[in-house]
Amino acid sequence: MAMASAKLLTTVTCTAPINIAVIKYWGKRDEELILPINSSLSVTLHQDQLKTTTTATISKDFTEDRIWLNGQEEDVGQPRLQACLREIRRLARKRRSTGDGDSLPLSLSYKVHIASENNFPTAAGLASSAAGYACLAYTLARVYGVEDDLSEVARRGSGSACRSLYGGFVEWQMGEQADGKDSVARQVAPESHWPQLRVLVLVVSAEKKQMGSTVGMQTSVETSSLLKFRAESVVPSRMREMISCIQARDFPGFAELTMKDSNQFHATCLDTFPPISYLNDVSRRIVQLVHRFNACHGQTKVAYTFDAGPNAVIFTLEDTVAEFVAAVRHSFPPETNGDKFLKGLQLTPVLLSDTLKAALAMEPSPGGVQYIIATQVGPGPQILDDPHTHLLGPDGLPKPAA
Amino acid sequence: MAMASAKLLTTVTCTAPINIAVIKYWGKRDEELILPINSSLSVTLHQDQLKTTTTATISKDFTEDRIWLNGQEEDVGQPRLQACLREIRRLARKRRSTGDGDSLPLSLSYKVHIASENNFPTAAGLASSAAGYACLAYTLARVYGVEDDLSEVARRGSGSACRSLYGGFVEWQMGEQADGKDSVARQVAPESHWPQLRVLVLVVSAEKKQMGSTVGMQTSVETSSLLKFRAESVVPSRMREMISCIQARDFPGFAELTMKDSNQFHATCLDTFPPISYLNDVSRRIVQLVHRFNACHGQTKVAYTFDAGPNAVIFTLEDTVAEFVAAVRHSFPPETNGDKFLKGLQLTPVLLSDTLKAALAMEPSPGGVQYIIATQVGPGPQILDDPHTHLLGPDGLPKPAA
Repeated sequence: MAMASAKLLTTVTCTAPINIAVIKYWGKRDEELILPINSSLSVTLHQDQLKTTTTATISKDFTEDRIWLNGQEEDVGQPRLQACLREIRRLARKRRSTGDGDSLPLSLSYKVHIASENNFPTAAGLASSAAGYACLAYTLARVYGVEDDLSEVARRGSGSACRSLYGGFVEWQMGEQADGKDSVARQVAPESHWPQLRVLVLVVSAEKKQMGSTVGMQTSVETSSLLKFRAESVVPSRMREMISCIQARDFPGFAELTMKDSNQFHATCLDTFPPISYLNDVSRRIVQLVHRFNACHGQTKVAYTFDAGPNAVIFTLEDTVAEFVAAVRHSFPPETNGDKFLKGLQLTPVLLSDTLKAALAMEPSPGGVQYIIATQVGPGPQILDDPHTHLLGPDGLPKPAA
Repeated sequence: MAMASAKLLTTVTCTAPINIAVIKYWGKRDEELILPINSSLSVTLHQDQLKTTTTATISKDFTEDRIWLNGQEEDVGQPRLQACLREIRRLARKRRSTGDGDSLPLSLSYKVHIASENNFPTAAGLASSAAGYACLAYTLARVYGVEDDLSEVARRGSGSACRSLYGGFVEWQMGEQADGKDSVARQVAPESHWPQLRVLVLVVSAEKKQMGSTVGMQTSVETSSLLKFRAESVVPSRMREMISCIQARDFPGFAELTMKDSNQFHATCLDTFPPISYLNDVSRRIVQLVHRFNACHGQTKVAYTFDAGPNAVIFTLEDTVAEFVAAVRHSFPPETNGDKFLKGLQLTPVLLSDTLKAALAMEPSPGGVQYIIATQVGPGPQILDDPHTHLLGPDGLPKPAA
């Protein structure tokens, strides 16, 4: 914990990762506590490419809680943010009253200033709320000296945020209790477990704003009989199967189940009334590209998964990633030469074989994929010790953008 | 039955309608007998707009069975066609042996020539096999003097063909017997039952050939757990609900269930592995257009349904059809001025209100809908008495195209 001189204020800055579900979360059994209708499982992406950074400062001089997202002050009164703040202060109070914490130097009644920003554009369509609320929970815990499990704090902000509290492969156990105390995230395997795994985010331009996932899943729970069946009768065995594929580093098994679960999630969206369609024609071409790529190789070397938007997230192994990027470039020739098509991890370009080109047999769709972010599995939230990384200055206000 | 002089040959010409399922058939429990995993229900479209015409001739002079489709000779040996011919001849033999038919003037061993054509382009993407096999079964039955239920004959050609044997509203009861004898079509209500009902076929240009429904449903049965659940646990109650909506002429009830069942069918396609997507971005815009149109009116005035392709079939009532056509024209401005955008039933054009235009709030997609066929509920197969309508000449060969 970084401490300003004379203890006038305490400032902590942390980062947290994005996670991509391979067994999808869709639907709450409790809207207030954000308890899911099924367990889910995700892969934590590396923060070298994609992360949220959050600074929290508490001071006796602050007259109210305030928050800035990507430099813009936002309403601190919004219910989910309030739930997180309430929950972390409750844990801090509990800790103090049971006497198992160090005596806290600053009062719990001090107001907090929070600033948070992503190192990726909102336009990338990546669900940033999971990383954002995980980072908030993690940062506030350091400020307030809380060492409990933070699943509930993060979950109250955004359900899937609890999965961003750990690196590697993470399950969110749905739990059974009405109070949600057993609805927690736990690490299935650390980021070092499967070093060959690679992740590509294929950013697709969406024609319009998609339906938000909060409203979407609520409508699905109310109207889709297929979603209820999926949650009760399909997901439990898929969770077990996915965990054993990950433990065995069985890529074809992991990949097939990832694709099937993504498809089934989107199937339940379509079964919602009115129906929800997050996939567009470009998404569907990516699906086709992956299946043809795998068919040509005679084995499952690449998997796709889609969340509440048209962007694809691709899983593959180190030995295949460059070839698949070439296949994407072949099928979706970049329209602009200015901006880089491939961002993130550097890859040695390879040429597509004529066999593969013929097997893909697709009419090229120029510009269908705007760009690719290449990344890998990464660790959980991190504390940044360097005060230069703070997003809030000594006055408790956002530093001017550099 | 039209009889040529000297009984050298018997020629019969019939027409049969297309049907559009509102409770969808997808998946067989017996591939050979074409027995479905669930019951289905359809609306028979009027033959003034869409029909198949088939002529069958038998003669002792013919040396082999032959068939011409849309003027092109096809392989008569293909298994489904053979199954129909075998089945109709079996029924004819049974009839003769039990002595309850007139004595047949011509031998059952005589070979048959068949010619069939549609009055709509294949490019319209309308599943023509149902009308085709219904017409074949109906025509052969007249030639051979068969008066039994023709469900099995038609079904062996194409499952949903049995629903084209009747006009109005038709259910195909899945049946329980292993031999399929109780898997039959029956009329729920005649075409005169709901005279206000209107049907629009919105022809959407498909970018590529879709996966055929035979292979598609086979893959779905093998891989989709949602399809199994739908067939067993969702469809039975939907059949009852749909029948009572039709009997009560409850348009909002009929329309909502039609949309939900179409969506659920496409959801099970997406849950198939590899996934099947018949809907494209234009289809999805039509879905959105219908929901916005209904929302603006504060009631369900229009319904969509989609089969194994991107074309939409729209149900609405007489008092709304012209306004909805205007909404389609507004959202999908015709690209060509040459060909008619609206074919079939004539409608008095109406102007869209500004309120409705604002409610639709869609970026226009020029050319997304190629054209519309306006039609209504119609009768079952018909016999044509006029010999001029025969597609085969006195020589048993296709007449030259006029």
